[in-house]
This record gives sequence, structure tokens and C-alpha cells, in this order.
Amino acid sequence: MSAGGVRLAREFCIDKGHSFTDQLEKIQCVLQDLGSNIATPLSSARDSHIKNNMFSSHPVIEQGRWIDFFTEQLPPLTKFILPSGGKSSAALHVARAVCRRAERCVTPVVCSGEADPEVGKYLNRLSDYLFTVARYAAMKEGNAETIYKRPENFCASSRI
Amino acid sequence: MSAGGVRLAREFCIDKGHSFTDQLEKIQCVLQDLGSNIATPLSSARDSHIKNNMFSSHPVIEQGRWIDFFTEQLPPLTKFILPSGGKSSAALHVARAVCRRAERCVTPVVCSGEADPEVGKYLNRLSDYLFTVARYAAMKEGNAETIYKRPENFCASSRI
Amino acid sequence: MSAGGVRLAREFCIDKGHSFTDQLEKIQCVLQDLGSNIATPLSSARDSHIKNNMFSSHPVIEQGRWIDFFTEQLPPLTKFILPSGGKSSAALHVARAVCRRAERCVTPVVCSGEADPEVGKYLNRLSDYLFTVARYAAMKEGNAETIYKRPENFCASSRI
Repeated sequence: MSAGGVRLAREFCIDKGHSFTDQLEKIQCVLQDLGSNIATPLSSARDSHIKNNMFSSHPVIEQGRWIDFFTEQLPPLTKFILPSGGKSSAALHVARAVCRRAERCVTPVVCSGEADPEVGKYLNRLSDYLFTVARYAAMKEGNAETIYKRPENFCASSRI
Repeated sequence: MSAGGVRLAREFCIDKGHSFTDQLEKIQCVLQDLGSNIATPLSSARDSHIKNNMFSSHPVIEQGRWIDFFTEQLPPLTKFILPSGGKSSAALHVARAVCRRAERCVTPVVCSGEADPEVGKYLNRLSDYLFTVARYAAMKEGNAETIYKRPENFCASSRI
Repeated sequence: MSAGGVRLAREFCIDKGHSFTDQLEKIQCVLQDLGSNIATPLSSARDSHIKNNMFSSHPVIEQGRWIDFFTEQLPPLTKFILPSGGKSSAALHVARAVCRRAERCVTPVVCSGEADPEVGKYLNRLSDYLFTVARYAAMKEGNAETIYKRPENFCASSRI
């Protein structure tokens, strides 16, 4: 599901020529490996199978670099922003929400020792990455970020 | 997740110039408050925290007015309609399905007394609202609603 | 949720003039019947109600024919492909992931004997169908399929 969400977001990003679409493709591949690791329980799978499906720390480290790179180019986050900023950005926010749900499902598996700890770290960082590139996409497309406003402060125009 | 679904739907609706996109933005903000209320369990959170995160009945009442407004402009619903009517409408129907799932998750929390009762009412009405504006968007775009047909009554053209 | 996902995918497919959009509409109707069957527990519903909501084997058989038809026109699957190939295809892959989740939810209901066995078969085949037409859509649009690569084999360009 996460990989599908990333891919649909990628299609919108390709339309806009965003620079990070190769990263999204790589993420799809890493998610494939991540799924294989989860599907190979450490306590019961064959040793050769476990060895072939180890999830290394490399993608986690690389993702950290990606997040830092985009964060440096973004204005600091001083207010609570809402999913916004065009279709690329909105689709990346949806992918992020799907990723958070995947993290909630996978965390017990990691905590039980049946999946590699890096799996949990990767999913945790992936939603940070998707949030960051969603902001970056909005900025590059020149779309304003939607700031959370207390509902009672909306102007009358949105009321009937 | 709900807020992301609403936002992606909103992007398609902005493309078509629909009148209710400000309402969708306000809904995103209300969903933020709704999440804060759920994350502040009435039995264990600090009093000041609970007070700051109360979920008022105002959004529920306002949403009821919105639903009535659009319903009056729509033809009566005499048949079972399927998600349909262009991308705005289809994306609103997806947001509605996500909202129904959120309602199923949140209902036990509300019933246990840990979240404000208005939270349950709001989510329940939100899917009605999304259904109604999905129909409205299809009508405004001049797209026919797809009516449920018994599968055996489909013409041969869809068969191979 | 599945029906909504199918419909949003259908909208993208209509934009591209794909030949199988009538099939997607029929699938939406069948999913409606499938939901009615699940909502009519065999052990406790009224007999007349059960009779009206039986889920026949016809849609399962028809779907098998559809899958065979498209599979014959596709190049054989020799590598692991990732959701890819344009928005129609990506949206069909998302619909497939949603369908797989539905299958996981519904399987226990079928196994308990409360829903018709054809319901489980239909959902199982539906994800095959969606996978197959996702590949077909990508081929017809002239989009290359994205092949899974081991993440360490990505070229340096996707790195920062």
C-alpha cells in the first residue's frame, strides 16, 4: 500500500518535473526489501532466507541525508501546516499518512524481534522525508502552504 | 489520513473552480482539532490540556447547514449511486470512505468516554457532507451519476 | 473503500480512453453486491434476505476470462515490477493494494461460514485483475514498467 501511494505521488511529481522523483523510485525498491524482511520472521525462517532478506542500515542513513538536504532549502516551520500546495504535494501528504499507518502496523513486529530494527527506523524516517518533500514540492511550484487556523477564525465567506 | 484525503480531493475541486473548497480547508482545520481531542484522554490528561482541546458543537451544527444547502440543490436520490462523476467527485468519494473508516476507529474511543461526544457526531456527519458535495460536484461539472445496476443486466459490450 | 479506489482509477483510465473502463464500472456494481452479502450473515439473517443477497459464481468466472484476455496480450512477467506506468496504471495499483487489504479483512468472515465462498474468490481474483490491467494500461500508453532493482545498484544520480 505504501509503495502504491508513493508511486501515485511520483506520477504527479513527474508531471511537474520535480528533482526527487528518482529518490521516490528508489524508495519503492527499498519498501520491497522492507516487506521481504517483515515476511521473513527471524525466529522461524531458514537461515539462508534470513541472510538474503536482511535490511541494512544504508537506506536509513541515506534518507537522513536527503531529509537534511531539503530541510536546508525550506523556510523554518513556525506554524502548523496542513496538507496543501498542489496535487504533487497533497499526494505526498497522503503517501505520508499511509506510511504512518504502516509504521503503526510494523512496530509491534519489530519490537517482538521478528524484523530488523532498521525496518522500524526506515518507516519512521520515511514519513519525515515525505513531509519534507511535500513542502519542497509546494515551494518549487510556488504554492502557498495552508496554515492551520482555529476554525472559529475563518472568515464568514466559507459559511452558508 | 482523513485530512490528507480531503486535501487531495480539494486539489481536484480547485482545478474545477468548485464553490465549496473553502469549506474543505476549514474541515482540514477542524480535523486537526478533532485529532487533538482524541489525543487528550478525558480520564488521564491534565485539566488545562483538556480545556484547551475541547471539541465544540459548533462545527457539527455548521456542517449540518452545509449539507442542507447542497441537498436542496440536488435532485432527490431515488436510486443507489456509485462513486462517479469525474475526478473531483471520485476523490471526494474516496475521502468519504476514509472518513467512514476513521469513524469506525474513533467510535469506541468516544463510547468509552475518553473523547468528546461531538467528535463522533462530526465524523458521522462528515461522510454525509462528502457524499453530498461529491454529488454536487458531479452535477456542476455536468457528469452523469453512475447508477448501480445488477451485474447480470450489464450489456454484452463489457464482456469478453 | 475498494469501490472508491476502483472509481478514482477509472476516472484516470477514462481520460486515456482505455478499453476496460466498462469492466471497472461493472466491478463497482459487483462490489456493491459483495458488500451486501457480507452484511447478511448466513447464521442470523432472515432467509428471504439471504436469498436476495446471494453472491453467485458468475462474476468470478467472468473475471477469470478478463484476466486471461489481457494476460495474453502482455509480455511475460520475468522480473519483479513496481507500481508504475502513468497515473492510470499507478491508480490501478493503489486500487489493487486497497483490494488486498479488503481481502485480508473479509477472509475471516468467509472462513467462518458467514459469507458466500465466492466472495473470497472474487476479491482474490480482483487484485489479479487490477494488477493485469495496470500493466496493460502502462503498455497501451507506451510507458515503461519500473523494474525492481536492488537499492545498492541505483546509480549515484539519485543520491545527494
